[in-house]
Amino acid sequence: MEIGVVGLGRMGGNISRRLMKASHHCVVFDADEKPRVALAKEGATVVQSLEDLGETLKERPRAVWVMLPAGRITEETVERLGGLLEPNDIIIDGGNSFYKDDIRRAKKLAEKSIRYVDCGTSGGVWGIERGYCMMIGGPKEVIDHLDPIFAALAPGLGDITRTPGRAKGDPRAERGYIHAGPSGAGHFVKMVHNGIEYGLMQAYAEGFDILHNKDSKDLPDDERFVLNMPDIAEVWRRGSVISSWLLDLSAAALAKDAQLQNFSGFVQDSGEGRWTVEAAIEEAVPAEVLSTALYARFRSRQDHTFGEKILSAMRFGFGGHIEGSEPIAPETRTKKLQGRAASQNPAE
Amino acid sequence: MEIGVVGLGRMGGNISRRLMKASHHCVVFDADEKPRVALAKEGATVVQSLEDLGETLKERPRAVWVMLPAGRITEETVERLGGLLEPNDIIIDGGNSFYKDDIRRAKKLAEKSIRYVDCGTSGGVWGIERGYCMMIGGPKEVIDHLDPIFAALAPGLGDITRTPGRAKGDPRAERGYIHAGPSGAGHFVKMVHNGIEYGLMQAYAEGFDILHNKDSKDLPDDERFVLNMPDIAEVWRRGSVISSWLLDLSAAALAKDAQLQNFSGFVQDSGEGRWTVEAAIEEAVPAEVLSTALYARFRSRQDHTFGEKILSAMRFGFGGHIEGSEPIAPETRTKKLQGRAASQNPAE
Amino acid sequence: MEIGVVGLGRMGGNISRRLMKASHHCVVFDADEKPRVALAKEGATVVQSLEDLGETLKERPRAVWVMLPAGRITEETVERLGGLLEPNDIIIDGGNSFYKDDIRRAKKLAEKSIRYVDCGTSGGVWGIERGYCMMIGGPKEVIDHLDPIFAALAPGLGDITRTPGRAKGDPRAERGYIHAGPSGAGHFVKMVHNGIEYGLMQAYAEGFDILHNKDSKDLPDDERFVLNMPDIAEVWRRGSVISSWLLDLSAAALAKDAQLQNFSGFVQDSGEGRWTVEAAIEEAVPAEVLSTALYARFRSRQDHTFGEKILSAMRFGFGGHIEGSEPIAPETRTKKLQGRAASQNPAE
Amino acid sequence: MEIGVVGLGRMGGNISRRLMKASHHCVVFDADEKPRVALAKEGATVVQSLEDLGETLKERPRAVWVMLPAGRITEETVERLGGLLEPNDIIIDGGNSFYKDDIRRAKKLAEKSIRYVDCGTSGGVWGIERGYCMMIGGPKEVIDHLDPIFAALAPGLGDITRTPGRAKGDPRAERGYIHAGPSGAGHFVKMVHNGIEYGLMQAYAEGFDILHNKDSKDLPDDERFVLNMPDIAEVWRRGSVISSWLLDLSAAALAKDAQLQNFSGFVQDSGEGRWTVEAAIEEAVPAEVLSTALYARFRSRQDHTFGEKILSAMRFGFGGHIEGSEPIAPETRTKKLQGRAASQNPAE
Repeated sequence: MEIGVVGLGRMGGNISRRLMKASHHCVVFDADEKPRVALAKEGATVVQSLEDLGETLKERPRAVWVMLPAGRITEETVERLGGLLEPNDIIIDGGNSFYKDDIRRAKKLAEKSIRYVDCGTSGGVWGIERGYCMMIGGPKEVIDHLDPIFAALAPGLGDITRTPGRAKGDPRAERGYIHAGPSGAGHFVKMVHNGIEYGLMQAYAEGFDILHNKDSKDLPDDERFVLNMPDIAEVWRRGSVISSWLLDLSAAALAKDAQLQNFSGFVQDSGEGRWTVEAAIEEAVPAEVLSTALYARFRSRQDHTFGEKILSAMRFGFGGHIEGSEPIAPETRTKKLQGRAASQNPAE
Repeated sequence: MEIGVVGLGRMGGNISRRLMKASHHCVVFDADEKPRVALAKEGATVVQSLEDLGETLKERPRAVWVMLPAGRITEETVERLGGLLEPNDIIIDGGNSFYKDDIRRAKKLAEKSIRYVDCGTSGGVWGIERGYCMMIGGPKEVIDHLDPIFAALAPGLGDITRTPGRAKGDPRAERGYIHAGPSGAGHFVKMVHNGIEYGLMQAYAEGFDILHNKDSKDLPDDERFVLNMPDIAEVWRRGSVISSWLLDLSAAALAKDAQLQNFSGFVQDSGEGRWTVEAAIEEAVPAEVLSTALYARFRSRQDHTFGEKILSAMRFGFGGHIEGSEPIAPETRTKKLQGRAASQNPAE
Repeated sequence: MEIGVVGLGRMGGNISRRLMKASHHCVVFDADEKPRVALAKEGATVVQSLEDLGETLKERPRAVWVMLPAGRITEETVERLGGLLEPNDIIIDGGNSFYKDDIRRAKKLAEKSIRYVDCGTSGGVWGIERGYCMMIGGPKEVIDHLDPIFAALAPGLGDITRTPGRAKGDPRAERGYIHAGPSGAGHFVKMVHNGIEYGLMQAYAEGFDILHNKDSKDLPDDERFVLNMPDIAEVWRRGSVISSWLLDLSAAALAKDAQLQNFSGFVQDSGEGRWTVEAAIEEAVPAEVLSTALYARFRSRQDHTFGEKILSAMRFGFGGHIEGSEPIAPETRTKKLQGRAASQNPAE
Repeated sequence: MEIGVVGLGRMGGNISRRLMKASHHCVVFDADEKPRVALAKEGATVVQSLEDLGETLKERPRAVWVMLPAGRITEETVERLGGLLEPNDIIIDGGNSFYKDDIRRAKKLAEKSIRYVDCGTSGGVWGIERGYCMMIGGPKEVIDHLDPIFAALAPGLGDITRTPGRAKGDPRAERGYIHAGPSGAGHFVKMVHNGIEYGLMQAYAEGFDILHNKDSKDLPDDERFVLNMPDIAEVWRRGSVISSWLLDLSAAALAKDAQLQNFSGFVQDSGEGRWTVEAAIEEAVPAEVLSTALYARFRSRQDHTFGEKILSAMRFGFGGHIEGSEPIAPETRTKKLQGRAASQNPAE
């Protein structure tokens, strides 16, 4: 098939490459010249503007895959494409848009009979090689029409063990893509996917933190261990219940540097973790782990919160506690004997 | 009554003062000279050692109130007093000991017929004036014997509105002290009290944090407010559902400095918050808020956790994310138009 | 002053009464007849429709206090009033509206020069007696104009201890109301107030839960206590760090029935707890406690979540665990001796 | 090698089988006859008591693998073996013992020169086929001596992609077992492993819960989706960031029954999740996700907590809220127009 691709960053560039490898024809555009030049060398038809893109695409209906950061850029690009394309043409948003934006856009484009598909795309920098896992929302006939594109991008059956008892299920799921439901459903499923990802990551992070601090001087001597993080991450990849791709990545990072000295621990979050929590709240689902994983990232980006200052101020207020002047937590091993004036307030 | 007091820090000193004001006779000891000198001037009989204390106390049974930091110092002092005292004498641990230590000590001292009382004491630096709220564990007859002491330390009825329908309850509760149960029960109730305190403090802290950050530049202009923290804390003291003594303290701190610039936000924790969570786990009680309040303090004392570095390392692994190089969270208001190469990986 | 009041439920009725007691004149309306009849007897001018209300109010500018449940009813009432009133007239929304709705409404009404005030009102059923704590958003001149109304509803200085160092602050805060900021700021501060309230309530709830379960049969005999909840709640009201109005309410409920048998534990939430969490997320504030307090309410309303079924299914998958067939948690006191076939899978 | 195995449940039986398959000789014991008979048929030497076991083992030093539920049974079996074995003999605890018990036992057995090894063993019912992932604590020379046993039980390199840059690491980790450190370190690492497992499971559980409730009638019609859980679980196994073995298990369970009707959602916990949280607290590591995952299990086993009743009682106290009588959360779609008496208290 012929397909337009707008946005040639880490994701869009590789998606084009994987499509071309499967003999699809890509007409590509990016505002920056560098990726355009690169893709041209690799066989893509490169255009200089969105208008060019519309004119250059020959097959009807035209299909344009938008692969841009969620937010204003995607919004405006979809809007402009809506003005350039014709009835029956298809816009696919392969980025991480908020699913309520999809619902709105699909409705608006439908007024002009332009068809809109939201496609949550997982795979990161590894997708070009492993294939992309796709969760797709939109009208059935459009998604069926685009099947060759999705099939080419998906990982396929590969050598992953098949799930027992899936005989009757939709065969696309096993090949790495699903039609999740109407407009918005694709990005909704992808959004929850990312929410889960935050939770999984935080679970590993806390576990490694507990291992790492097992050498703390506050612990009794025979309960202190210096543990080998790289070996532990590696052994858990082998026959353990918690093996996963995220653990593979952790093992690789720890193998390179057991102290992770190149990382400060300033952790960004994208919109999807936030939207997942908001969706949970709308549905009254208690999403403790997903929320707390998000908050850990918020906290990682601050020196101190104003809330922590309030805590200190209250402690000073009721007990005269001066920050940093007291022993931390239960004094368990002090050697000093008799009744010294409590430097710490014994009762709050 | 005559009573010995060991430990003349912020709590022990004031307890002695409040007792003397109620015409009890205090024989006091502290390892430091300064508080000894101060108490001597105020009418206490000061001794130079625990041995002196035992000899100086005239009434039988002797009663010694130990007011030291929980942990080794208290443990050793109780042990030494156990060696110095005689059958029927009484040791009161008024500090924040772990209740399982009380159970153990009471058993051991009972072998020598020495009676042990655990007394959780709340009130902080304000107690001398407001009185101390006491939760007491141990044998009924001992606690009855000590009633004049507890009655003197407690706030009494004061002008606090009486709870409707308490006619039949133990009248001591209304005066500010209770016999909570057998050995350990006093400190157990005090421990949970402090656990609750952590939760309450954190609830206020988060609320003020949300108010404080309502001026964030990441918000749309008409949704940004510069809010007056001191006024808000003050108004909530007046007829609102969340008025409390902790709020009074917050209001006082904010009235003094709305930015709390004298506080860094490095927040200690004492043993009781930790033990409360452990007790919850032993009982299989889901204590989300009390735990999370504790963790917020742990986190406040670190620059970054190792766990956060793991998160950064994983994000680099799957998406090539470089720390700090990406816009934080949902880009919602970028003005840039057409398809630029995504500086941010659109799909994780 | 003369003021219209729309909505005569528990809040609106009592607000009218408190205003009349302060010699303000209330023109009131409610869709139900019963509260109209009641208020008529107490001296209010009762009207039969919103249109009547507009015509009956004599003073200019007219001021109408809307006290209805947040959501569609309030929205539509404000809209209809917007059509009935004239330039300079004032609409006060005293309910729990979402602050972004205030911002939108204020803008729209401003097109017709109608002035809009959002007033977060705390006090519940006790407000008529104790006064209402109010957090007000909107233009300064309008709020100044309405000052007699707010002053009458507020608790006033009363006998609450004054905060040291407040000499220079806005005197209204001490009397129980503040001008929080522009449109929306009033309801925003009230929203955070309710968010904090959820956190405080959950902290007490968890603490009492830990006390209540200290009698669990899973604990060693000498670590089991039967604790007296009503006495504990009462004693904490007296000189303890955690005394508060919410604790007063808990003490009253427990004094009436220590087992709280009239309550099942099915806990509703209103919009404000949810919006507070969403605000925290927008600001990237880690609001662990406020979120978890909300989730505890969500969970309280379900028998089991689908998530819990997933957990059971996974456990069956990796370990053959059958729900309910295993001993719960660490078997610590089994008396059986030698090597029995593990009824429990020893290693997951 | 020759090895004794005590405990022939799901884990111990299969461990014996995997060892025999690798030509090791197993002398096995279980208090129940059924598993003894089964193992006898498969080639194991079966004994009738621990005493028999000691006498039947011919090789010196003797090695006995104890595979029993953690707690009293394991404790007593290790103690009895300590009495039956001789200097240099080896006891391996392959169960889920608390690591501090290992430290204590190792010290005590060392007095008799008996050597103790703690081996955290992951793999569940799948281990016989996939191999067991083992985290081992104890003296180096003993663990080296037992290497043939560990090597036989471990999964080996298999076809799992090798971690880039592990050239210099301990080669055992890649084959599925590590010497984690001194006594206790094996079970400590296994304990954290299980703690992480709880967190991972809960992250998936919450995600599926959010997907499952996306069909809630409380949502606007065009934002409601009926999502296909089995297909979603399957597609995430394919090229997505959150693929894992736990997800494989979820996919299998959902493929069998998309509603999981055979599971009620009553979720047990074993000691290791609890101990992980306690370890975090000892180290002052903020382990939000691991704790909350544990609490979700606690909560899943109760109809209502006492804490929830307290919440209801407080709500009744301040607002007259009757449980279940109010609309749940923000009323967003009511069609009713004008000012009805609020059945819901608009302001708390």
